[in-house]
Amino acid sequence: MGAKADQRRLFGSAMKILTLLFGRRLANREYQDRKIGWVAGVPAMGLDGLGSSSYGPEAALTVLIPLGAASLYHVGWVIAPIVGLLAILYLSYRQTLLAYPSNGGAYTVARENLGKGGGLLAAAALMIDYVLNVAVGISAGVGALTSSYPALHPYTLWLCLGILALVAAANLRGTREAGWLFAVPTYVFLCSFIGIIGYGLVQLHLSGGAPTPVVAPRPLPPATETLSLWLLLRAFAAGCTAMTGVEAVSNGVDAFKEPVLRQARATLTVICLSLGMLLAGVALLAQGYQIGAMDQTQPGYQSIMSQLVSAIAGRGPLYYVAMTSLLAILCLSANTSFVAFPRICRLVALDDYLPRSFAVSDRRLVFSVGVIFLTITGGALLVLFDGITDRLIPLFAIGAFLTFTISQIGMIVHWRRVGRQGRRLAMNALGAATTLIALAIIIVAKFSEGAWIVMLAMPLTIVLLLSVHRYYARVERRLSVAGKFRIEEREAPTVLVAYEERNRMTDRALGFALTLSPDVVAVHLLRLRDPEAEEDLARIRDVFAREIAAPVEAAGMTPPRLMFLRAAYRQMSGPLIELVEKIDAAAPGRSVAILVPERVHRHWWERLLHGRRARQLRAALMAQAGPRLMIVTAPWRG
Amino acid sequence: MGAKADQRRLFGSAMKILTLLFGRRLANREYQDRKIGWVAGVPAMGLDGLGSSSYGPEAALTVLIPLGAASLYHVGWVIAPIVGLLAILYLSYRQTLLAYPSNGGAYTVARENLGKGGGLLAAAALMIDYVLNVAVGISAGVGALTSSYPALHPYTLWLCLGILALVAAANLRGTREAGWLFAVPTYVFLCSFIGIIGYGLVQLHLSGGAPTPVVAPRPLPPATETLSLWLLLRAFAAGCTAMTGVEAVSNGVDAFKEPVLRQARATLTVICLSLGMLLAGVALLAQGYQIGAMDQTQPGYQSIMSQLVSAIAGRGPLYYVAMTSLLAILCLSANTSFVAFPRICRLVALDDYLPRSFAVSDRRLVFSVGVIFLTITGGALLVLFDGITDRLIPLFAIGAFLTFTISQIGMIVHWRRVGRQGRRLAMNALGAATTLIALAIIIVAKFSEGAWIVMLAMPLTIVLLLSVHRYYARVERRLSVAGKFRIEEREAPTVLVAYEERNRMTDRALGFALTLSPDVVAVHLLRLRDPEAEEDLARIRDVFAREIAAPVEAAGMTPPRLMFLRAAYRQMSGPLIELVEKIDAAAPGRSVAILVPERVHRHWWERLLHGRRARQLRAALMAQAGPRLMIVTAPWRG
Repeated sequence: MGAKADQRRLFGSAMKILTLLFGRRLANREYQDRKIGWVAGVPAMGLDGLGSSSYGPEAALTVLIPLGAASLYHVGWVIAPIVGLLAILYLSYRQTLLAYPSNGGAYTVARENLGKGGGLLAAAALMIDYVLNVAVGISAGVGALTSSYPALHPYTLWLCLGILALVAAANLRGTREAGWLFAVPTYVFLCSFIGIIGYGLVQLHLSGGAPTPVVAPRPLPPATETLSLWLLLRAFAAGCTAMTGVEAVSNGVDAFKEPVLRQARATLTVICLSLGMLLAGVALLAQGYQIGAMDQTQPGYQSIMSQLVSAIAGRGPLYYVAMTSLLAILCLSANTSFVAFPRICRLVALDDYLPRSFAVSDRRLVFSVGVIFLTITGGALLVLFDGITDRLIPLFAIGAFLTFTISQIGMIVHWRRVGRQGRRLAMNALGAATTLIALAIIIVAKFSEGAWIVMLAMPLTIVLLLSVHRYYARVERRLSVAGKFRIEEREAPTVLVAYEERNRMTDRALGFALTLSPDVVAVHLLRLRDPEAEEDLARIRDVFAREIAAPVEAAGMTPPRLMFLRAAYRQMSGPLIELVEKIDAAAPGRSVAILVPERVHRHWWERLLHGRRARQLRAALMAQAGPRLMIVTAPWRG
Repeated sequence: MGAKADQRRLFGSAMKILTLLFGRRLANREYQDRKIGWVAGVPAMGLDGLGSSSYGPEAALTVLIPLGAASLYHVGWVIAPIVGLLAILYLSYRQTLLAYPSNGGAYTVARENLGKGGGLLAAAALMIDYVLNVAVGISAGVGALTSSYPALHPYTLWLCLGILALVAAANLRGTREAGWLFAVPTYVFLCSFIGIIGYGLVQLHLSGGAPTPVVAPRPLPPATETLSLWLLLRAFAAGCTAMTGVEAVSNGVDAFKEPVLRQARATLTVICLSLGMLLAGVALLAQGYQIGAMDQTQPGYQSIMSQLVSAIAGRGPLYYVAMTSLLAILCLSANTSFVAFPRICRLVALDDYLPRSFAVSDRRLVFSVGVIFLTITGGALLVLFDGITDRLIPLFAIGAFLTFTISQIGMIVHWRRVGRQGRRLAMNALGAATTLIALAIIIVAKFSEGAWIVMLAMPLTIVLLLSVHRYYARVERRLSVAGKFRIEEREAPTVLVAYEERNRMTDRALGFALTLSPDVVAVHLLRLRDPEAEEDLARIRDVFAREIAAPVEAAGMTPPRLMFLRAAYRQMSGPLIELVEKIDAAAPGRSVAILVPERVHRHWWERLLHGRRARQLRAALMAQAGPRLMIVTAPWRG
C-alpha cells in the first residue's frame, strides 16, 4: 500500500499542520463531549461581565469627579439602581432560560415572540455589540497593562493584536479549551477580590464606618460643580457598562452539557452574584475609605480598584496577585464575544439572514467562520484606532441594553401566549420597563459622544441581513423544481479530450472517455504555447490513427477521432467553447463533456514546473459554460 | 442571446481590466507585426550599453583619483584598450549574427558548439547578469537622480520600485511598445551627447589641446599615490563595466523583423559606434578640459559627464536637456534586461532546463513569466538593499565578460566545424583571447569586492537548471508509453452524484449522470454541516423514489439509487473516497466517476454567500484520487 500512502502524503501533511495548531479533528459523535459545565462556563462567558465590575464603578465615579468629596456621598444613588437592575435582569434571564432551554438568546426570544423585525433588531444589536466588545475589551485591558508598565506603551497595537490572536486561536480549538485556558485568572480574580472586599467590609463594620487605610488614597479634589440630576443620570449611564456581558449566557446556552438548564443557571448565578457583590462592595468601600476616581490623563493615575486594594490590603504580594488577575480578566474579556457571537451568527444564518457558512461547524466542531469574522472585524477596529478605542466605549452599552429590552418584551409576549400571566410576566414586565428606561437614559446621555454611530450602524446591519435573505430566497426560487424528474436526453454525450501528444496521461483520459461514450474526439490545439511552433501534424495524426484508433476499432468499439483546432490566442477555452457551440447546434439538447487530464502534484514545488493550464482551462470553461456542458477531470499521478 | 451575454459578463470584465492595463490580446497571426526594426531596437536593447558610456569612464577615473592630475595623463591607457576591446567584440558579434541568424546569443552558440555544459554556463552567467542589471541599473539611475534633486532622497526605494514597475509594465505590453516608449530619451541622449562631444573635440583641436572651459571644472586634488600596474589594471577592470549590454542584441535577435540580420546588425552598429565614440570622446575631452572624477561621498560632487557638459556647453538649457536624457537612460537601462532575459529563459526552458512556463507566450505574445520573474527578483534585490545597490556593482561585469568569452570560444569551434579557418576564425580567436584576459583581470581585481558571490551563484544556478532538467526527464519517462493503446475497461463507470435535496441543480446533475452510465448512485451525506442536524431521511428517500427513480424506471432506464453516507467529520471527500474504494474492491478495474454540481457565480460577492464546498471537495478528491477515479463537474448557473 506504498502508493496509497504516498498519494495521501501531501494531503496528510496539510492536515498535520492544522492538527498542530488547532488540535485533531473531531467526529460528530464527540459533539457531546465538547460541552462544558458551569466551572468552565464562568471563564468562557463571564469575563466580560466580571471585568465590568472594575470599569463600571470607575466610569460612574469619573463622571462624578466634579462633585469632589461629595461624589462619594452620591455614588450610592448611582450604583444602587445598577445593582437593582442587575438583580432584575438576573431573575428575568433565569426565567428566559427556563422557557427557552435550547437557546434563550435575545434573537430567538424576539423572533419567536415579536416576529422577524424584532429578531433582526436583536441580532443586529448583539452582533454590533460583540464586535465592539472585542476591540474595546482588548484595548481597555492593554491600556490598563501599559499604564502599569509604561515601557510597553509603544507596543500597544501589537499587544492588542497578540491577545486577539490568542483568544481567537483558543476559540478555534473550541469553547471548552478557551474556558479551561482562562479558568485560572478568572478564579484567582474572583477569590482574591471577593476576599479583599469581604475583609474590607468587615473592617468597615468594625471601625464604625471609618476604617484606617493601609495605604492612604489620595485626598479628593475640591468640588467644581454642584449636584444635578443630569450629572447623576450621566453617571448612571456610564456605570451601566457594568452590565454588559450578562446576556452572554443566554446566547451561549448550547455550549453547556446536560443538565443544560442547571449548568446555564449556575453559570449565570455565579456571574451575576459576583458582579453584584463586587459592585456593591466597591461602592460601599469607596465611601468608607474615601476613594474617588482620578483623572486618567494626569500623572500618578490609579484606578479605583488599585486604590481600594491598596487601602484594604496594602501593597504586598496579594495586591500584585489581585491586580494581575484583574488585568488578565480585562484583556481576556473579548472571550465572551468569541463564545456568543458565532452562536448567534449560526442561528441567524440558519434562518438565511447571514451566509450559510456561518452555520457550518468545522473540523473542531467550532463555527469557525463566525470566529474568523469576529477576529477580522475586531482586528480591523484595533488597527484603525491604533489600539486605543476609548472613543468606542460610549457606543458600548447601547447594544446590550437594547437586547435586554427586546428580550424582556419578547418574554412578556411569550408568557401571555402560553397563558401564564402571573409572577413571571410581572418580573419580565418590570425588567422590560427598567431596561427601557436605562436604555433611554444611556442614549440621551451618550448620544453626542457617539451613540448615534450605533443608531446608524443598526439599520445598516439590518438592511444587509435582509438583502442576504432576499438573495437566498431568489436562489431558492431558481433552484426549486416541482413535478416528476424529466429525462431530457438519453444519448451519451460527445466527449472532447484535450490531447497534445500520446502519453500515459492521454491514454488514461481516452480510456475513461471511451467508457463514457462512443463519441470521443481528441482535440489537439495548434500553436497553443508558441505562435511560431512548427508542429509535426502528420506524425501526430499517424500515431493517433495507428496506435490508438486502430486497436480500438479492432476491439469492436467506435474509435475516437482526432481533431486539430487553431488556438489563435494561445488559450484552450475559446476554441473549445466554439467547438462545443458548433456541436450543440448540430445536435441540440445533447450534452458535451470536456475531459481534461490533470496532473496531481506530489510536492508543492511541482506546481512551479507544470503551470496551471488544466486549472485555468477549467475555470474559463466554468465561466463560459452553456447549459449542456460537463467538465471531467482525469487526475493523473505522474 | 441575453443569457449567453450574461454568462460571459464576469469573464469579460476580468479581460477588460487586463486590456486596459496591457492592451488587447494579440492573435498568433499578429506575431510578425510585433517585430521591431533597428530604430526601436536601439532604445529596446541599447539602454544598458549606452548608459555604460557614462559610468564606465567615471568608474575608471574614480580608481585613478589617487594619482591626482596625473590620472588624466594615464586615462588613455585604460580607455584605449576598452575601446579596442569594444571594436573586437563588435566585429565578432557581427560574425555571430551571420552564423546564427535566428538566435546568436551566448547560450545558443555555446550549446551548439561546446555542448550542454558550455550552454548552461553561458545561461547561468547571462541570467545572473541580467537580474543584477535590473537592480543595479535602476538604483544607479535613481542615485544620479537623487544626487541632482536631494529632496527626492527619502523616496529612493519607492522611485526605484516605481521605475521597475514602469519598465515591467511596458514590457508586459511588448518589446515593441517598450522600444517606442523609450525612444525619445534615447535619441535625445544620442543627439545631444554626440553633438556636445563633437563640438568639444572641435574646440579641443582649434585650441591646440587646451580649450577654455565655459564653466571651469574643479581643480584636481594632489596625487597621493604613484602609478602602478595594479592601479591601471583595477581602473581597466572598473572601466570594463562600460561593455555590459553589448551582448543584448545577440540575445534579442528574434525581436527583429525581416530582414532580421540587417536589422540586428544595424542595431548593434548604432549601439557600439555610439558607445565607442562616447568613450573615446569622454577620455580625450577629460584630458583636454582637465576633468577628473570627484569623490561621491563629498559635498558638491559632480559626475564626469556633468563637468564635461558644463565645460563644453555651459549651464544653459542644453545642459539640462542633455543631463535629463542621461538620467532617463540610466534609470531605464534595466529595459535591456527585460528584452533579453525572457528570451534567454525561453530558449533554456525549451531545452527543459527551466520551468516550461518560461517558454509560453501570453496574450500579448510576451514571455510574461520571464518578465514577471525578472521583476520580482530585481524588486527583491532593490528592497533588500533599500534601493542602494553600489555593493552589487563589482559583481556586474563578470557575467558579461564570461558570456563574451564563452560565446567567442563557441564561435571558434563553430568555424572549425564548418571548415572556415580564415579571417573569421582569427577574429573570434582574438576576441576570445582578449575577453578572457579582461575577465581574468576583472576577477582578480574585483574578487575581494564581491566577485566571489558571482563565482558562487553561478554553480548554484547551474545545479538548479540541471535538477529541473532531471525532473522533466523523470516525468517524461513516467509519461512515455509504447505499443498500442490498451483498452482496460469497456463498461460504463459507476457515477456517484453528490446529492443533498432534490432541486434543479441535482436534477441537471442526475440527468447528466444518466447519459454517462446506467449505474448512477445519488449520495446524501448525513450531518454534513451540523453534527446535531435532524434530517428527515424518510422524506428525502420518498421524494427520491417517487419523483426521480420512478419516472426514470418508467422511461425504461435503470433508475438511480439513493445512498446515505455518514459524514463523521463533516467532510465529503473522506466518506466518498471510502465508498469509491469499496466499489473498486467489488468491481476491480472499473472506473468510478464522482459528479459534483457546482454553481457558477454571476458576481464576485456570490462566493461569500455560497462557500467553497464544491471546490474543496474537488481539491480533496484530486489529492486522494486512486487510479480509476474521474471527477465530473456539472456547472450550474443559478
